[in-house]
Amino acid sequence: MGLFSKSINTLDDLFVHTLQDIYYAEQQIVKNLPTMIGKATDPELKKGLQKHLTETENQVKRLEKVFEMHGQSPKGTTCAAMDGILEEAEDIMGVAKDEEVTDAAIISSAQAVEHYEITRYGTLVAFAKELGRDDCAAVLQQTLDEEYAADKKLTAVAEARVNRKAA
Amino acid sequence: MGLFSKSINTLDDLFVHTLQDIYYAEQQIVKNLPTMIGKATDPELKKGLQKHLTETENQVKRLEKVFEMHGQSPKGTTCAAMDGILEEAEDIMGVAKDEEVTDAAIISSAQAVEHYEITRYGTLVAFAKELGRDDCAAVLQQTLDEEYAADKKLTAVAEARVNRKAA
Repeated sequence: MGLFSKSINTLDDLFVHTLQDIYYAEQQIVKNLPTMIGKATDPELKKGLQKHLTETENQVKRLEKVFEMHGQSPKGTTCAAMDGILEEAEDIMGVAKDEEVTDAAIISSAQAVEHYEITRYGTLVAFAKELGRDDCAAVLQQTLDEEYAADKKLTAVAEARVNRKAA
Repeated sequence: MGLFSKSINTLDDLFVHTLQDIYYAEQQIVKNLPTMIGKATDPELKKGLQKHLTETENQVKRLEKVFEMHGQSPKGTTCAAMDGILEEAEDIMGVAKDEEVTDAAIISSAQAVEHYEITRYGTLVAFAKELGRDDCAAVLQQTLDEEYAADKKLTAVAEARVNRKAA
């Protein structure tokens, strides 16, 4: 979550800080997904990632809405975790030689991205509810549901890849 | 997953590389959990993290067993993702002022750690099965089950904290 310009005194501060963390993370995902889409060869994987890019762009807008609902200006704060996850994804895509191995590496990397989002949105939904902001929680829950669905879809693509190879 | 000394040509290479990634990550968790335990004030949270430290030490040994079963020497490779997750955890614990806010931040950080492990062990189990190494998959699955249980336990501790505060 980067370095702080101010202390985290209340749960509200922690909620806003976590929003800023995932706002930065989502923007990095939007920047990096096109490389994954370009490297993917499995048509289902390519299509799924393309769909998720559109979803992610919408998730950024949804976060801006939550910032606004909570009386804050949308602002990101460096998320070392997402930077690390995407750095690993870039490294592995750079050295994987075989098309199938590259697809397997992309699925693994994309699932690491999804799980980071699942944990942060899960936390944000819980914090919003604790703060009595059920309206914010409902908006954040929409994204959380999409992340779970995206992760499930990636598992299905991975299984289809294995089954096709076995056939 | 750090920089590579060799190419990833096969799914077996990717499996071994992912083992090395999580082996490094688990070792970093063992190093960092004591700080989280020291800063936690909720007794249930402290106890849960303490238990998870013991579990994590065992997970390191389990990984060494899998390396051995697969004819490899246990070796770690820098995992930028886990480094980032733990850097964020350290930052947030350093600036959170209130005990309850610190506990909330620790739960959030620990769940980010769990989700990273869930995604990598999930991938490792799938790769092991695809490689016909059901024996390795079974060992890795034990850890995956523990990670899911640890994440669930953290959610329960968070809910108990909220309920107690409301009481």
